[in-house]
Amino acid sequence: MAAAPVWSVDPRSGNPREQVAAEATAEEVDRAVRAAHAVRGSLADRATRAAFLRTAAERLTGAAERVVAAADAETALGPARLNGELARTAAQLRAFAEVVEEGAYLDIHIDHADATRTPPWPDLRRYKIPLGVVAVYAASNFPLAFSVPGGDTASALAAGCPVVVKAHPDHPATSELCAALLREAAAESGLPEDVVTLVHGFDAGVALVRHPLVAAAGFTGSVRGGRALFDAAAARPVPIPFHGELGSLNPVVVTGAAAAERGEEIGAGLAASMTMGVGQFCTKPGFVLVPEGESGDRLLKSLTDAVSGTGPGVLLDHRMRDAFLAGVTERAALPEVDAPVVPGAGDAHTVAAGFLTVPARALTTEGPHDALLEECFGPVTVVARYAAEDEITAVLSRLPGNLTATLHISAEEAEGAAAGLLAALTPLAGRVLVNGWPTGVAVAPAQHHGGPYPATTSTSTSVGATAIERWLRPVSYQTTPDALLPPELREDNPLGLPRRVNGRTA
Amino acid sequence: MAAAPVWSVDPRSGNPREQVAAEATAEEVDRAVRAAHAVRGSLADRATRAAFLRTAAERLTGAAERVVAAADAETALGPARLNGELARTAAQLRAFAEVVEEGAYLDIHIDHADATRTPPWPDLRRYKIPLGVVAVYAASNFPLAFSVPGGDTASALAAGCPVVVKAHPDHPATSELCAALLREAAAESGLPEDVVTLVHGFDAGVALVRHPLVAAAGFTGSVRGGRALFDAAAARPVPIPFHGELGSLNPVVVTGAAAAERGEEIGAGLAASMTMGVGQFCTKPGFVLVPEGESGDRLLKSLTDAVSGTGPGVLLDHRMRDAFLAGVTERAALPEVDAPVVPGAGDAHTVAAGFLTVPARALTTEGPHDALLEECFGPVTVVARYAAEDEITAVLSRLPGNLTATLHISAEEAEGAAAGLLAALTPLAGRVLVNGWPTGVAVAPAQHHGGPYPATTSTSTSVGATAIERWLRPVSYQTTPDALLPPELREDNPLGLPRRVNGRTA
Repeated sequence: MAAAPVWSVDPRSGNPREQVAAEATAEEVDRAVRAAHAVRGSLADRATRAAFLRTAAERLTGAAERVVAAADAETALGPARLNGELARTAAQLRAFAEVVEEGAYLDIHIDHADATRTPPWPDLRRYKIPLGVVAVYAASNFPLAFSVPGGDTASALAAGCPVVVKAHPDHPATSELCAALLREAAAESGLPEDVVTLVHGFDAGVALVRHPLVAAAGFTGSVRGGRALFDAAAARPVPIPFHGELGSLNPVVVTGAAAAERGEEIGAGLAASMTMGVGQFCTKPGFVLVPEGESGDRLLKSLTDAVSGTGPGVLLDHRMRDAFLAGVTERAALPEVDAPVVPGAGDAHTVAAGFLTVPARALTTEGPHDALLEECFGPVTVVARYAAEDEITAVLSRLPGNLTATLHISAEEAEGAAAGLLAALTPLAGRVLVNGWPTGVAVAPAQHHGGPYPATTSTSTSVGATAIERWLRPVSYQTTPDALLPPELREDNPLGLPRRVNGRTA
Repeated sequence: MAAAPVWSVDPRSGNPREQVAAEATAEEVDRAVRAAHAVRGSLADRATRAAFLRTAAERLTGAAERVVAAADAETALGPARLNGELARTAAQLRAFAEVVEEGAYLDIHIDHADATRTPPWPDLRRYKIPLGVVAVYAASNFPLAFSVPGGDTASALAAGCPVVVKAHPDHPATSELCAALLREAAAESGLPEDVVTLVHGFDAGVALVRHPLVAAAGFTGSVRGGRALFDAAAARPVPIPFHGELGSLNPVVVTGAAAAERGEEIGAGLAASMTMGVGQFCTKPGFVLVPEGESGDRLLKSLTDAVSGTGPGVLLDHRMRDAFLAGVTERAALPEVDAPVVPGAGDAHTVAAGFLTVPARALTTEGPHDALLEECFGPVTVVARYAAEDEITAVLSRLPGNLTATLHISAEEAEGAAAGLLAALTPLAGRVLVNGWPTGVAVAPAQHHGGPYPATTSTSTSVGATAIERWLRPVSYQTTPDALLPPELREDNPLGLPRRVNGRTA
């Protein structure tokens, strides 16, 4: 039986462009994982890894024109966005090179022997080591930054873990190109190419998470797909960590004072954020609590104007377009739901942005309106109008976990009065914003891109320096002669690494 | 229907002592979890938590006589061991008070806005917050240090999480006493007593891990029980972290040079470690690779003498005694297995320590001898004699994950030659020891008590300062006015906490 072909498809027409690969068979997945496992030792040296990550960034940047053209042809995200995403992806690879070199991620703890402790301390030295082969499941909506050369791959390689990427079917040609660039960068850095491998196909993805030599997995995608893989990871004879980013509503609360102070500005900002990338960001603000009354009306007027002025957009694939149309139709048909700008079909291949409104009190108890509290991928948001503050907290308490939660307040409230609302938003999300918009996720040490389930399946982040922690485990050496210790743990600190000694920063 | 009674049983006779409680019904578990959830805010203040942990240590120490008597009556571990365990438990509570006060566990990262980054950084401030109600499953073999007032409870409370403990059926009276002391300590510290609650019963344990308001779980026990609860935690509509310590063989490798240098000393040390606490430590050295030939024979002679001199011991309960007898009988019956000191029954209620020997080459391929590579709880170890170094690595490659791995080497090998063996042991375990014994786990910042599955179900530790990380999740605040930030994240660092700023230690 011939392996199923993998086609690159033009989302602007729905037409197949070219056959770029074949779906990996179980044997091919096994071969890829074994090859990755066999070369894991080549990533042991931190300086080599840092150099590799920088070379990968250079290769990617050097091939920018080809990469952007390939990605645009498959995703319709457009050159401007894709050039920005490429710059972000290259910067992310370089940022992880710095993380590796600086070494704080090793989380080194050294305790000297101390007989006065209860019980006595022997000499103990702890740091973190790579887990092994990491499976990365690429996202549809970021063909670069959350796909083959993206954050999961960069952080796993930084940790010293070889990577087998399962390509997203929405951009197989881009994936092949990026994988080739990463493998060339590996060879240029003196590493075996098999530190990064690419496989295609749904079944290959399942085989990957079940493979005995796969030690951890990173995923960005839907609740349904992510949960199925999470379940498979947990059901293994030897369960593995599964760090999945699945779905998020990203609630926004606008106070009455904020709406009064700058309702128009907030409406325009919301429109820009919810339509960015044709509403296909995992951090799209999908649910907004806006006060009833005149200032809330002004906000909605501004939102209406801005969203109406947004041209039709192409979603990543036709399945998503179908799901979007079904999702907005179902939601718009609910009682008391209005659509000041109707989200729906553009021409045969595009969608039009829009938004729905609903009284917040319709959401304070379980019922059919709960569909409005579920993520709808694409350029739509739900504005819930509240009559009183207690409706805000009642609705917030019914939300699932989120990547982000956003608060818009007035200048006066910023001086302290909004502390209660901020505290009410904190349990809901991994990132809380004040007077900003959640789309756009900085690659920074203090970033946390994750949140209570279903935002993520673990307490980890997939963006920022601490994303490396997902691919490591601690090991302690007890009463081990200095000559046998890894240099990171030797008494005289030959590598000059940050460390904590006897429970204090050295 | 009346709730099932919970009896305290004397393991020295197998006779019930007294009825101490009733198994919790599903409604009672629900009530306990809701009560814990309702009071979670009371643990928000770090200073209050530290004071509470210290008061708990005082209460425990003040009631030492009663606690030790209760524990000895139910576990037969003896006053000497139990007084030591109580001191360890109190010290552990105090150690976590220090961890809370020092504040490095908050893992504070502050990034200032920086438009020159790709993409630009907004002001981002990250720290860690408590997950919510933690379910703690007490261990059989440490009625204090890994039970009601033990490391899971101490670290969860330190993190700011209320705790519902599921008592181990081997020591319900000790559990009741300790829970009462912790609740008194809470009240004395101005906290609601429901920050710690105790429930009994197998079904209660299952209900607990499935409860929607339980946010994480800690477990110490068997592979079978732990895996069942892990599976339940993963199968929830909202999965939760399950940090389970399940089982460990704790391999030991003795080099030829080490045996030649101090075979007698190693034999005596092994005997002491494997029989400590009647072989009921999770870190018991259960599998030892010893060279064939004269120096290995000397080691075995010393082991034989020391183990023969060990009196019979009482296991924690009669079910464990049955499992021990069945386990040693099955293993001793394998071809090529000898028992220089026969492990087995003492009198009707005790067991006698012993050890088995087998040629290492019998273990280099799959077969019935694989039973020797599984943990057997109780005072027995397996000595595998190797003829050549390649047998060591062949056997090590077949071992499951472990809490510890130990290497005994000569003074000369300590200068560098043993680096290869140390590297071969590192993938097997969370703690690697040289020329020591794995029993006895220091409560120290550099400790790691965990390891590849089935040693633990996650990459976390259950002992030492970093055990607190299990009960926390990060949250980032973006562009949040200083007045609204939690004091931990304010620009002027009013609490004087350790932090990293712009990716560097401040």
